[in-house]
Formats: sequence, C-alpha cells, structure tokens
Amino acid sequence: MLTRRRFIERAALAGGASLAYEAMTGLGLMAAPQAAAPFNLQGSGNGTKVVVIGAGLAGLTVAYELGKLGYAVQVLEARERPGGRAHTIRRGTVSEEDGPSQTCTFDEGQYFNCGAMRIPYHHTTTLGYCRELQVPVETFALVSEAAYLYQSKTPALKDRRVRFREVHTDMDGYVSELLSKAVADHALDEVLSPEDRERLLEYLRSKGALDSSGKYHGGALRGPDLAGPPEGTPRYTPLPLGELLGSRTPYYLDLGFQYQQTMVQVVGGTDQLPRALAARVGKKVTYRAAVQSIRQGERGVTVAYKDAHGAPHEVQGDYCVCAMPLPLLAQVDTDFPADFKATIAKVPYAAAGKMGLQFKRRFWEEDDQIFGGASKTDMEIGQIVYPSSGYLGKKGVLVGYYLQGQAGRPIGDKTPDERLALALEQGSRIHPQYRAEVESGFSVAWHRVTWNRGSWSNTNPAARRKLAEPQGRVYLAGDHLNMNAWMQGAFESARQTATAVHARAVAEQATARV
Amino acid sequence: MLTRRRFIERAALAGGASLAYEAMTGLGLMAAPQAAAPFNLQGSGNGTKVVVIGAGLAGLTVAYELGKLGYAVQVLEARERPGGRAHTIRRGTVSEEDGPSQTCTFDEGQYFNCGAMRIPYHHTTTLGYCRELQVPVETFALVSEAAYLYQSKTPALKDRRVRFREVHTDMDGYVSELLSKAVADHALDEVLSPEDRERLLEYLRSKGALDSSGKYHGGALRGPDLAGPPEGTPRYTPLPLGELLGSRTPYYLDLGFQYQQTMVQVVGGTDQLPRALAARVGKKVTYRAAVQSIRQGERGVTVAYKDAHGAPHEVQGDYCVCAMPLPLLAQVDTDFPADFKATIAKVPYAAAGKMGLQFKRRFWEEDDQIFGGASKTDMEIGQIVYPSSGYLGKKGVLVGYYLQGQAGRPIGDKTPDERLALALEQGSRIHPQYRAEVESGFSVAWHRVTWNRGSWSNTNPAARRKLAEPQGRVYLAGDHLNMNAWMQGAFESARQTATAVHARAVAEQATARV
Repeated sequence: MLTRRRFIERAALAGGASLAYEAMTGLGLMAAPQAAAPFNLQGSGNGTKVVVIGAGLAGLTVAYELGKLGYAVQVLEARERPGGRAHTIRRGTVSEEDGPSQTCTFDEGQYFNCGAMRIPYHHTTTLGYCRELQVPVETFALVSEAAYLYQSKTPALKDRRVRFREVHTDMDGYVSELLSKAVADHALDEVLSPEDRERLLEYLRSKGALDSSGKYHGGALRGPDLAGPPEGTPRYTPLPLGELLGSRTPYYLDLGFQYQQTMVQVVGGTDQLPRALAARVGKKVTYRAAVQSIRQGERGVTVAYKDAHGAPHEVQGDYCVCAMPLPLLAQVDTDFPADFKATIAKVPYAAAGKMGLQFKRRFWEEDDQIFGGASKTDMEIGQIVYPSSGYLGKKGVLVGYYLQGQAGRPIGDKTPDERLALALEQGSRIHPQYRAEVESGFSVAWHRVTWNRGSWSNTNPAARRKLAEPQGRVYLAGDHLNMNAWMQGAFESARQTATAVHARAVAEQATARV
Repeated sequence: MLTRRRFIERAALAGGASLAYEAMTGLGLMAAPQAAAPFNLQGSGNGTKVVVIGAGLAGLTVAYELGKLGYAVQVLEARERPGGRAHTIRRGTVSEEDGPSQTCTFDEGQYFNCGAMRIPYHHTTTLGYCRELQVPVETFALVSEAAYLYQSKTPALKDRRVRFREVHTDMDGYVSELLSKAVADHALDEVLSPEDRERLLEYLRSKGALDSSGKYHGGALRGPDLAGPPEGTPRYTPLPLGELLGSRTPYYLDLGFQYQQTMVQVVGGTDQLPRALAARVGKKVTYRAAVQSIRQGERGVTVAYKDAHGAPHEVQGDYCVCAMPLPLLAQVDTDFPADFKATIAKVPYAAAGKMGLQFKRRFWEEDDQIFGGASKTDMEIGQIVYPSSGYLGKKGVLVGYYLQGQAGRPIGDKTPDERLALALEQGSRIHPQYRAEVESGFSVAWHRVTWNRGSWSNTNPAARRKLAEPQGRVYLAGDHLNMNAWMQGAFESARQTATAVHARAVAEQATARV
C-alpha cells in the first residue's frame, strides 16, 4: 500500500518541489492555495541544517518557513541588504551596477521602487505574507484617466498628448455607434433575438453616449480640457476614429489580468516586505557572503563563500536551497549534472529598468490632475508612472521611465547621466514642467546590477519543470520556478521548495530511525 | 466710464455672488478657476463684521477666507461640532436623528464617512484646500473588478452573484464579437475606410479576446473563479449575452465623470478636512447656537440664536452669510421677500443614507480578494462599499448600504434596528460571511438628521440664480448654490460668496469715505 508518507517521499525525491507540493495538497496535509488559506506545514525539522543561498523574497521565505518548523537555517546573501529586486531607492542609496556609481540625493521621505512595485489583488500568497508580517499595503492607483498618451512614431496623433479619458470615451463611443448602426440596419439579426436586439441598442446608447439616432458626438467622460481652447469651455469634440486606430493609442487602455483593479503596494516602499521577513529570520542571515561553490556528498552539502574582505569560508548543511538568480548561479562552481547546468545557462533574462525623478513640486497633480496612474508613449521612455502615495505633498518622485522586458537594454546600456538626459528630454514633451521642476534622478538597469544580471527570467514550462527537480540535496527556489517577475512567484516557489525539503527531511529522518 | 470697481460694485449689488465672482475673474482681479490657481482676494476687510451661519464646509470656508482679509467673522453653528455632512462616524459618535438614539461602538480606529466620502481628481478647489490645510488624501479605490453584482428582481442572473470582471470581460467580448462580425460581413463598409476596417478588426480581436475567426469564448480577464466548480480550475465560460443584457448588470460598469479615476479620500476620515478648517477659524465659531431669526436694517444684520441651555442671544454684523441647509433656513424667521422665501421652501432635498458595519475580520479581502470598490445590487441596500484603507487589518468597517437620492427614504424611515436587520439580511445574500462576522452597525438617514433634514439639494439653475442674489445684507452659501452634493460645491460657493461680500464691503467702504 502506498502510504501517505511514502507517497510524499516518492514525490519529493522523484518529482521535486512542485510535485511534492501538489501531493501534500492533494492528500490534505496542506490547504489548497486559495483565499486566506494558511500555509501550515506539520511536523518538525529537528534541527536539520539547511543552507539557503540568497536573501531575496524566495530565500528569506524558505528560511522563515523552515525556521518555524525547527530547522537550523543559515542564509548567505551577497549584498549587504535583504530583498534582492524587492528594493526601494531612497536618500543615500548607492547603485549596485557596473559603470559609474550613483548615490541617491532625494529628500528624506522620498523614494521609488526600482524593482517590484505592485501587487495584484489575486496574489493571495503575497498578500497573505503582508498580513502575517503586518506589513501594511495601500492602493496602487494603476489607472488615471487624466494621464496622457503620447505617440511620436505614428503619423496619427503624432507628437500630441491626449488624455486616457479622451481615447477611452471616444473608442467606447465609436464602437457603440458602429455596432448600433449595424444592429439597427438588421445586419446582426441572425445572431440576435429581437429582445436582445432592442436591449443591446439601449445599452449601446448609454455606453457610448449616443444621441437618439445612434450617433456619437463626444461624451462628457472626455472631460473639459482646461488646457485647450476655447478657454474654460468643455471640449467634447471626439478625436477621429482613424486617428485613434492609426495611433494605436486604444491598445494602451487594455491591461492583463495581473493589472486588474484593485492593485496594492507596500506602504513606505516595497523593501518593507523583505525587511520584515529578514527581521523574522534574524541573525541567521550572513550578508556580504559571495557564494563560490556548492558541493555535495551523500550526507550533506558544502557551500563555500567569500566574505566582504575576500576571505574564504565554508558552511555545511543537510540540504541547500539555492535562491540565486540563474545568471549568477551559472557562474558558481557546482557538481550539478551537465544538462541541469545547461538548463540554468539557457534561461533568458529580461533587462527591465526604471528611473526615479524627484521634482520640486507635484506638477502632475497640481497642473494636470493626475493622481497615480501612468502616461504611456512609444518614445524610448515607454511610460511615466506617477506615485500612488504622498498626494498633495510639497515634492514628489515619479518613475521617469519603466521599460519591461528587453526594451530596457538600450537605455540601461547608457551611463546614468545619459539616461537622465533622455528621460528629461522625452518626458518634457509630455510634461513641459520637467525642466523647471526637476531636482535629481536615480536609475537602475537590472541587467547591469552585479548581483542580478537581469530583471527577471523568462523561464518556459519545460525549463521550469527541470529546474524544480532537486539535484541531490540541492533545491532551487525563486520566481523563475513559478511566476516570472512577480513577488507571488517568489513566495509560491519558496513554499513549494520548503514543502519539498520538509517532506524529504521527514522521510530521511524516518528512514534513519528504522 | 464704467471703472473696474464700479463694475464689481454693480455686479455685486445686482447679480449677487456668482456675477461678482465672474466679474472679478473677467477683470483679472482673481485667477480663473483652473488647476492649482490660488484663490487670492486682494484688499482689506478693515474689521467689517460678518456673521456666518453654519460651520459646514461652506460656512467655515467663507469665515476662513474673509478672516484672511481682516474681516471680523463670527460663525454660529447649531451642532457642537463643525463639518455638517462632511462627517465621520467613530467609536462614541452619537446619532443626530430623530427617533431612537444610536451610539457607535466600533473599535478605536475604525470609522466610516456617513456623508461626503470621496473627491474626484478634477475637483481642484477641494483638493486645493486639502493641500493648503495640509490635510492628506489617499486613493479612494472606486472600482474593484473582484466585487460582485447581484440582481434579485430580474429573471436574468436572478439571485446569483457574479464578479464585475466577469460582466466586464463578457460585455467587451460580445460587443467586440458582434461588431467584428458586422465589419467582416461588410455591413459597415460605407462608413469605414478599408484601412480603418482592417485596423478595427485587429483592435476588436485584442479588445474582446476574440479567436482568429472573431469569436468570443470567454477571456482571461474573467479570472479564475476560486469559489466555482470544478474546483481550482479557471472558469472562463462566458455568461450568455441575453442574461447580461436582461439583468442590466452591464449598466453598473459605467460611471459618470465625477466617478472617473483617480478618486481620492481624506486620510483618517472626511471630518479631518472641516476640523482643519475649524482650527484655522479658531474661537470665532460658537457651537450649539441655534439660529432663530435674521433681521436687517440699512446698516446691519441682527441674528438671534438660542444657546445650549435655550437662552436667547443676539449678534450683529455688517453682513450675514447664511450657509445653512435650505430646509432649516425655511424655518428661520427672516425678512426675506416672499418670492425668495418661496424659492427656499421649494428646493427639493434628497434622502440619502448609509450604514457602517464593523466585522470581526475583513472577509471581503481575505476570502473574496476585494480591496475597495463596491458591490452593486437591485436589492434595497443598493450597494456595499468596501473600505479603501486599512487593508489587511484585523477588523474592518464597510458601508452596508449607501442609497442616493430618494432611494434612501424607505430605509431611513425605519428604526436603526430595522435598518441593521435589513442590511444584514440582504448583505448576507452577497456575503454569506456576514452573520458570523458582524459586530455592530451604525446608520445615518440624512432626511431625519435634526440639523440637515435632507442629504443634499436638487437645486435647478433658475432657483440657484435666485438664491445667489443677496437679500439686502444677507448672502447665501452652500453646495446648493453651486454643485449639489459635492464638497467642491460648498467650497466654490463659499469662494463666490466671499468674493461678493468682499466686493460689496470694499465698495461700501469707498462710498463711506467719499
């Protein structure tokens, strides 16, 4: 008979973290990952020693969860801070990149999140840790209808800033008008019941602000444009449909499920979350420990690292959890099989980057009525993200560019001064106030950050399955094993890895007792 | 020649507050009401005495602005607190209605705004006062796509809770599919250029998550329904179009310009705004002063009031600004002309009402992933508004019903206990957790509040013009003169009235000196 424990052992040994996690879930040892379900491993680690490499969210969470169970955990972190890409730039922050060094000169209290900055409402694991660690969150205002769209490369709407609300209202109006016409012309009678036909016409009139003959003339949701002539009068005249479609601005309005409302952010900066985790893990974290090699025998793992002064050290563990970014792990001397090493080396990493810009006053709020949200553009800066906190304050820091994926590489390859010049030049086309109000900037190019060498993995499912297989006594963890680029991926991977290590350790303890 | 001053005098005397305001604006004495433009009256009141009746936002703002100019202001307020409908219910708050008394038993730190609760981003005057008074604001999360729609009275979708994101995604899908079909069938060739035709088809495929043949099968934005079978699997199957249209749920998705993103709210409760104003006005406010009569001669106004003990008092002023709700002003003994009295008496008032419910835990966040936003229903409760602050905390207060306009009258006419029973019965159809988690409730029916007798005016333009005319030395102020129901209306009206009184006083001082 396949007993519970036997099943989990097999799963842990054969299928790695994911399968063990699924097995424990299926067997009711752990609640399924759903709303508010606590992660609640049972049993004891009995002092089993686990070396965790990396004090980012994944590594810290593994250490935190295994620590709860009585494991002896030691965390090695190359930086002198926890959090990895869950990082916040504040006064005095020093850049971690190659190339010219930057030191942040923002005012006290001003900051921006150079890495993870927002949490979808359905990332229940991330939110669960915020709750458990009493890290407060607040609304991340993803969309401001007052923010701008600015296209520089399309003949349509070229070099003209338009408000989200204008494009949004006009597209709703045109789509409603066109569908209304088709319905009224009986072009859709074969797919609409007479009752639905009438109801749809009524709905479209409302949705698209159509007149009684089904025409769109601009809706009140476009808003009065205080900046536009004639002065002080509402400007409801719609943009031409051809201009809208040709500019591709309507595509900016639609966002994926991860960006659905309501998003939240950590109060005071994302780094408060890893800091709270690190505080729970406590002195078990050794900072400025640069791992050189991971070697294992039948009964344990030896991890060698250099400290801040370059002096060599070694630590032993019964198991090792490796929560390093893969580009760095690829440089570590390991006895992993060649195909596993090849998998690690082949995972592509994105080169996202951001710049924070401090301004003397929050002109985007004062002059443009933009509170949170983002302006989008086809210029190199991609977007300007406005802060969702500190509204109406004296000064403010906005994100002058945020480029995702490979789009961040060209700008990140420039020097900090060149990046700043670009951000100011292009940003001032959207906000002419830029030049007069700017005080300082700080940029991060993740592919150039020494201890990351990439912003996030683009792991495919096959690579993910491969990487989730334990290599002897070494287990990997990180968002690259679960959900690339999101904190949720780090937390979920950490739980899966902690579950797998625990299942393995419990099984080996049982074997040892026999 | 019509001099500047003469023009303003005439405007002030003839056309009342609005016209004087417009005149000063037009003459460049005051900046036009636009983004971040400071309100900046010039000149001195030279100790001219102004009696202000009402320490709501309008009355306080008149006192604050005239106080800046050196007027000797006295404010009479019937309540023992400032703020009127800009009120927040907290532990210990006592109800102000007729009928059975309520005392709020929420935990310390828990609250809800029973009146004004949110500020549109384009209400620059309200936001300007928040900035000037250093009253912090935060995002009011108006929309949560995870919130529910629940129809009890339509055969379609009857007694079934669906998520906003489901209705939203399905309607976008169906509208895109239908329009795509009509376009592909060449039904709209006469109004679409060949280029726009192709671009529109491409856009609709993206917008509506259509397949390559233009069909909608449910989009990822519907989200996995964790509560629905089969357990743990995504449920992307769309709701039928006929059910959606028949239920009228799609109408809940569209909101007016006032509710466009981003909305904000006062940190810690709306009452922090009038409190900050009252602190600036200081000891010039006399609380528990119930005005009985307003009488005037050629040189001044006499206002009689009773104090907390019923003792009569009189105060004199050169001018009087009356910022009382009209239903109360109609009961005051005045020497206004009969037609003016008739106008005051005829303005209809709404009967909005709200109930705050404290729960042991924030199940809407923990179980349903709802952060802010509101669930909407055709049941008597109308909507459930979730808090936009205090996310992930232990307990929470949500608004168990918020009924606007006359819809609040039936529920407000019930006793507090009956209202609570109704809110729990209907609310628990949307949230089965209600019964197990509820701790206490507190309700406000504005048409029964002693010092309001209505939630807000529905003043029409003709009545507004009439009421803006000064009656001798008495000027009215309040949202009923500007923008019914919004704080912006109170602030704007206050500025207009302060401007008119100042223009008049300056003109009369000049005349006196001649």
